[in-house]
Amino acid sequence: MKIPKVIQHLIESFERLPGIGPKTAQRLTFYLLHVPQAELNAFSQALQNLKTNTVACSTCFTIAEEDPCSICQDPKRDASLVCVVEQPLDVLALEKNGLYNGVYHVLHGKIDPLNNIGPDELYIRQLLDRISGNQRLGSASISEVILATNPTMEGEATAMYIQKQIKQTMHNGQRIKITRIGRGLPIGADIEYADEVTLQRAMEGRSEY
Amino acid sequence: MKIPKVIQHLIESFERLPGIGPKTAQRLTFYLLHVPQAELNAFSQALQNLKTNTVACSTCFTIAEEDPCSICQDPKRDASLVCVVEQPLDVLALEKNGLYNGVYHVLHGKIDPLNNIGPDELYIRQLLDRISGNQRLGSASISEVILATNPTMEGEATAMYIQKQIKQTMHNGQRIKITRIGRGLPIGADIEYADEVTLQRAMEGRSEY
Repeated sequence: MKIPKVIQHLIESFERLPGIGPKTAQRLTFYLLHVPQAELNAFSQALQNLKTNTVACSTCFTIAEEDPCSICQDPKRDASLVCVVEQPLDVLALEKNGLYNGVYHVLHGKIDPLNNIGPDELYIRQLLDRISGNQRLGSASISEVILATNPTMEGEATAMYIQKQIKQTMHNGQRIKITRIGRGLPIGADIEYADEVTLQRAMEGRSEY
Repeated sequence: MKIPKVIQHLIESFERLPGIGPKTAQRLTFYLLHVPQAELNAFSQALQNLKTNTVACSTCFTIAEEDPCSICQDPKRDASLVCVVEQPLDVLALEKNGLYNGVYHVLHGKIDPLNNIGPDELYIRQLLDRISGNQRLGSASISEVILATNPTMEGEATAMYIQKQIKQTMHNGQRIKITRIGRGLPIGADIEYADEVTLQRAMEGRSEY
């Protein structure tokens, strides 16, 4: 039996998504056959407009509806505090609790030589420009950069690289605090089951009580 | 930070799919931001046309490009042998090895009282009509019905219900063989790890060697 072409196309589209194999793609496609056409149209429209209705903010490079993004535009935000993250999703995660009041810089990746991603593929140059104030004259000068890349091998390497680059490009007398997001045991964890590296980091990162 | 509307819509569309939670929906959506627009358009088109470009075959009720479907149309198929399955996906699975030469009947579900699905919500009436030959006069009479609903509680109940109904609607003298798909140990399985019911079924379903 030949599968109808449009079903085959949809299965293939789903299969290209990360973490979705052929079986799941089939299941999702046949599930959608039972869904009202209006819902399919909405889904289809959202896909079509995903990239055309969004822009990367020219300051922090997060994905937003307008440029500059709502965070960079917000006068209540402390523009002297910049949190460097790998992905726009990281911004969402950090914004969820609403406690951070600074701005962001999205790298759109991490240094990953095995996948041919070097520093030039990321928005690192733009971060350095932003810090040295070349890009946007008149904006508040940056006093602290929080390196919030993931605590993975690549994330740590990226953080280390950026730290070196910032130190190199700093003006004489310019003082910028460079910090790394805290690493240790996540809340709710069990020391018994924590891995060695996390425990080591937790010990190194201990604070006065 | 507000998530751009179109991103929010796409996340919501993904979340409605079975087995996809909020985190996965976010991940898929942000993954698609890095995909070429042409691929997004193809995905969008496939979704839009999914239901408009397919029909349910009026004989076997599988989802196909045309009515009757390619299986029901095929003169090389043995129309006297009907395999009753729950879903169109089951037809694909059974067709994969190309060994079955009969035709199908898709119920589009199973009797599932907990989810308010009774026999009338399924294509059981149409199966009975098909067997008694009311629906399509002149077509080959059916000699065997293979009940290939899933070997789950609901699937077994559905098979049992259909078997009773067929027996009730048979004409005097009409002889139809009703069979149930074989249940037992799947190939590659380990008796040690098989559950009790499967082992019982495997013993009951033993064949001469």
